Amino acid sequence: MSKVLVFGHKNPDTDTITSALVYAYLKQQLGVDAEAVRLGEVNNETKYALEKFGFEAPRLIENVANEASEVILVDHNERQQSADGIEEVKVTEVIDHHRIANFETSDPLYYRAEPVGCTATILNKIFKENNVEIPSNIAGLMLSAIVSDTLLFKSPTCTEQDVQAGKELAEKAGVDVNEYGLAMLKAGADLSDKSLEDLLSLDAKEFTFGEVKSIVAQVNAVDINDVLNRKDELVSLLNKNIEENGLQLFFFVVTDILNNDSTAVVVGSAAEAAAKAFGKQLDNDLVDLPGVVSRKKQIVPVLTEAL
Amino acid sequence: MSKVLVFGHKNPDTDTITSALVYAYLKQQLGVDAEAVRLGEVNNETKYALEKFGFEAPRLIENVANEASEVILVDHNERQQSADGIEEVKVTEVIDHHRIANFETSDPLYYRAEPVGCTATILNKIFKENNVEIPSNIAGLMLSAIVSDTLLFKSPTCTEQDVQAGKELAEKAGVDVNEYGLAMLKAGADLSDKSLEDLLSLDAKEFTFGEVKSIVAQVNAVDINDVLNRKDELVSLLNKNIEENGLQLFFFVVTDILNNDSTAVVVGSAAEAAAKAFGKQLDNDLVDLPGVVSRKKQIVPVLTEAL
Repeated sequence: MSKVLVFGHKNPDTDTITSALVYAYLKQQLGVDAEAVRLGEVNNETKYALEKFGFEAPRLIENVANEASEVILVDHNERQQSADGIEEVKVTEVIDHHRIANFETSDPLYYRAEPVGCTATILNKIFKENNVEIPSNIAGLMLSAIVSDTLLFKSPTCTEQDVQAGKELAEKAGVDVNEYGLAMLKAGADLSDKSLEDLLSLDAKEFTFGEVKSIVAQVNAVDINDVLNRKDELVSLLNKNIEENGLQLFFFVVTDILNNDSTAVVVGSAAEAAAKAFGKQLDNDLVDLPGVVSRKKQIVPVLTEAL
Repeated sequence: MSKVLVFGHKNPDTDTITSALVYAYLKQQLGVDAEAVRLGEVNNETKYALEKFGFEAPRLIENVANEASEVILVDHNERQQSADGIEEVKVTEVIDHHRIANFETSDPLYYRAEPVGCTATILNKIFKENNVEIPSNIAGLMLSAIVSDTLLFKSPTCTEQDVQAGKELAEKAGVDVNEYGLAMLKAGADLSDKSLEDLLSLDAKEFTFGEVKSIVAQVNAVDINDVLNRKDELVSLLNKNIEENGLQLFFFVVTDILNNDSTAVVVGSAAEAAAKAFGKQLDNDLVDLPGVVSRKKQIVPVLTEAL
């Protein structure tokens, strides 16, 4: 059997990077020649987690079709979020916790999606189902993913299953979940030294809502003024991006991880409509989103419905 | 929580009908108000299985949107094989063993597909994962599904997992798998008293291969001449169907369940191209398919690739 590549989405976050490493490890234990790879730069939060548990970042790849004929997707399924060349290779498995869209295969496959807060929570079950022990450092990666995706269990995407898995994994990893979790989130949320270009690429995902080609990006911040102080510059940059990519909407969400609120910078021809989807009017390109922290559960469904 | 409907594909076969009954039972045990329903007539094979294990056929429904707001799909995912009104309801779960195509949700869901021969084999795992006992009559339904989908373990879609699940379930159901299995297959494969219209609707599924709108139908026969003796009439009927539904291809497969071979009656503007996909030329609207018994594994991928 030739090598199978395991990877998450573009603009990788902690769940995507660690789930690729973790699932490649599990497949290796089951006798599969699997290698974790990544599709973009590793962010500061993920770097903190990798360093803490003694891992290197997976290898960066460009076009997957040059590298393998079979691949496993973790933490995503939509074509536009996946690797370049994805339509030329065979997807043999998907482990994910997002909606399903823009995904099609010609053959049956193993597809495991569950409506939980984090891919790692599903991987925790798959280890058990296969009777494979989770080593301490792997458990640390999985815990990091859960903390990241659920904002330390505070996101509305967080389920009882995520909380349970987080507890189990923290014990296996030998860390205090609150202390470690907050340190990791803060490592990723210090935006003061980031250029706006950096912020744009941190966690931006493409969506098509009806006919509206969009990017919904999200950054976590300890102090959202690190971003909002540079709003005018940011709006110019978003408009440039819209022009270059033929978009109708750029929805840029800044999430306050200490207070669990968000503010969005919204531009494009569909900006007014997007604000209206949340019952708001655009105020100087800004929309206030109190209590909103989850792109997947609180933003994408609202835009899907309205546009 | 309002009622959740559980159903398989149109033109239901044994796996689709029994998996709806079985998964609805499991969900009920887990406290969900679930009801199995069906989208079409129950065939003779399925009737035999239902009667053997003491079940009534599920209720027939027309448009699902009139009945419920949440649904669970078993044994299929493609929109055109699913219930009328499917785009107006929320799909909360899918348990399937087919390729994924023409399927999209706006929210995360539980999606469990595995590349095994039968939905019941996956259900057997899900019972275990939830620590729910499988009663004898439910085991009988699940065994019937496996026998049907794998042609008594002889189809190339049959995996070691299907064989294992079949053994476990036969024991729980208290039947001899070979004796019961052959009797059930024969009950479904006596085509001598069937009208051609009946045959056409027994197990016909719509596919779109590239731009080619198609129906691929399959019937099992003990004696394929029960069908082929009426070939000219059948060709007229297929052509009529093509015209009425704007199809480019009707690929009608007659499978000899004793010898595990098939012959296809192929009509439509894409008929020559479809025959060529199998390295054959159309011979009087017929294509000989030695060793072919699986639509999913031996027919659909070949047509997907070629067209």
